[in-house]
Amino acid sequence: MSTELKSAAAVSHPNIAFIKYWGNRDHHLRIPASGSISMNLGRLETRTRVTFNPALTADRLILNGEPTSGKQLQRVQTFLDHVRRLAGIDLYAEVESKNDFPTGAGIASSASAFSALALAAAAAAGLQLSEAELSRLARRGSGSACRSVPGGFVEWLAGEDDQSSYAVSIAPADHWDLVDIVAVISQVHKPTGSTEGHALAETSPLQKARLKSAPARLEQCRTAILRRDFEALAEVSELDCNLMHAVMMTGARRLLYWQPATIELIHAAGEWRRSGIPVFYTIDAGPNVHLICPAAEADRVAAAAAQIQGVKEVLQAPAGSAAHLLAEEVNL
Amino acid sequence: MSTELKSAAAVSHPNIAFIKYWGNRDHHLRIPASGSISMNLGRLETRTRVTFNPALTADRLILNGEPTSGKQLQRVQTFLDHVRRLAGIDLYAEVESKNDFPTGAGIASSASAFSALALAAAAAAGLQLSEAELSRLARRGSGSACRSVPGGFVEWLAGEDDQSSYAVSIAPADHWDLVDIVAVISQVHKPTGSTEGHALAETSPLQKARLKSAPARLEQCRTAILRRDFEALAEVSELDCNLMHAVMMTGARRLLYWQPATIELIHAAGEWRRSGIPVFYTIDAGPNVHLICPAAEADRVAAAAAQIQGVKEVLQAPAGSAAHLLAEEVNL
Repeated sequence: MSTELKSAAAVSHPNIAFIKYWGNRDHHLRIPASGSISMNLGRLETRTRVTFNPALTADRLILNGEPTSGKQLQRVQTFLDHVRRLAGIDLYAEVESKNDFPTGAGIASSASAFSALALAAAAAAGLQLSEAELSRLARRGSGSACRSVPGGFVEWLAGEDDQSSYAVSIAPADHWDLVDIVAVISQVHKPTGSTEGHALAETSPLQKARLKSAPARLEQCRTAILRRDFEALAEVSELDCNLMHAVMMTGARRLLYWQPATIELIHAAGEWRRSGIPVFYTIDAGPNVHLICPAAEADRVAAAAAQIQGVKEVLQAPAGSAAHLLAEEVNL
Repeated sequence: MSTELKSAAAVSHPNIAFIKYWGNRDHHLRIPASGSISMNLGRLETRTRVTFNPALTADRLILNGEPTSGKQLQRVQTFLDHVRRLAGIDLYAEVESKNDFPTGAGIASSASAFSALALAAAAAAGLQLSEAELSRLARRGSGSACRSVPGGFVEWLAGEDDQSSYAVSIAPADHWDLVDIVAVISQVHKPTGSTEGHALAETSPLQKARLKSAPARLEQCRTAILRRDFEALAEVSELDCNLMHAVMMTGARRLLYWQPATIELIHAAGEWRRSGIPVFYTIDAGPNVHLICPAAEADRVAAAAAQIQGVKEVLQAPAGSAAHLLAEEVNL
């Protein structure tokens, strides 16, 4: 076993799901109860360097320049333990990670975080992994992270075990010039985290029906992306979003992530679409509204969204590429 | 067949459902897909006089002092046709009806309207009907109207045909001093009407699951009312409300009745309850939020609700009595 200092860095984008991931078949391995489809969010990125260092006596996590402890560090340690097992090494690592998007902005950073970590840690540990293997590895850290490994428009094949559950690219980023206009909404309370939320999904009397009808929506969404059929993508995405929130708000604990501005934006998106502007909404486990539209409409939609009361900030992200390693000499 | 002038007047309260009616087994007869439970809303009332008059050449409807035509009149004519068939008469009628609550306030007036109309029309037509028969008759005009016929806390036994589908009282109005604080919210758009909504219910992939789990909720709600168990009533009512809205927002046309203030009030009700104030929310096919609490808390809850941005008006209604006939000489 080598005792040299081994380092690698990677970059990854967050992603926005059109067909949502909510509920697990296996919570520990994060095998989802159904497949999901997303678009990587270009411009926004996480950069992560992992250095296995014989001089360390414990794993370290430096997040946006700050040494981090507690649950965040623990989750990274558990992930690194898995990488060490796969690589047969026993060195502690320093993980340095930076997001170029505000962490409080409500864009899930765990997807890009664990995707970048998977690539950097695997490379630093000397593992030679395929894209599917890297996607499986990222999934162990955060379910949706597996979708940030391949590029562009991505489908997570639910599978039924660790081996069969990973994401693949449906189409590259330049296949369709869609833009995600993220309307960031100020929120009074910290919402329930996704991990707890996934566990609550099965307590809703609606979850089984949602899962049963998921394959049809996956098919519709995949086809809409391949055909660049905006209206079809809009219809299936809004329906699927509402289905997830329907499950969220009817569990043993009722999770209502929406804020007043969320509702205002949902209604606004409907009015804009009826008035002829191609745009639809989708919402993750938080109050922010993602307005998806062709690039040609992006500035107009972003300006309109910024006018809505309660919208704190508006970000724009086009379809983004696959996670990839960075050259050794690049600064994060 | 008599050709005398025959007149009768009745009064009825609207009602608020804890377990919701959404979706029909038979749209024409308004046989619901599941049972429902509600509380009549005292203080708020519809007063209706029906006069079968040989001098008339068509049915007339005077609503809050205004002669009415179009769909509203048509719906009343269809109802009167049914009463005429039952009574074996062929006289046209003048229907004069007044609500003492604002029609635009978003409190469904069709329940009290068709309940009062059922009692007044049946009496004017010389029909001697039991409470169950009057409830069945009211149901023909508007499903939830059958629940405004009996008094206090009422269950609509879904049944499976015209004969078996009617409402009964679970407990009288004075059984429990609950108050409905209606937070009336200004709305930009006229929402989709209930009749169209009921037809859309079956297009949601979630409706079957909602219906399948309804008997358990009916049982929980009935028991909570009989035991005056506020916390149990709150839990099952909020869940059932969310289940109905989950179905509404996932149909072939997605119906989102909520406005920003609706969300604000849902969150507020949760915070108030966590802080120790017994209060829960329920919402019908519109943006208004009904805050249910014991009478002792009513003023405090009403004052807090009035502070919420977007709340136009706050009404208070205690549990109300059964629909009943008015003495001949009473003015509406």
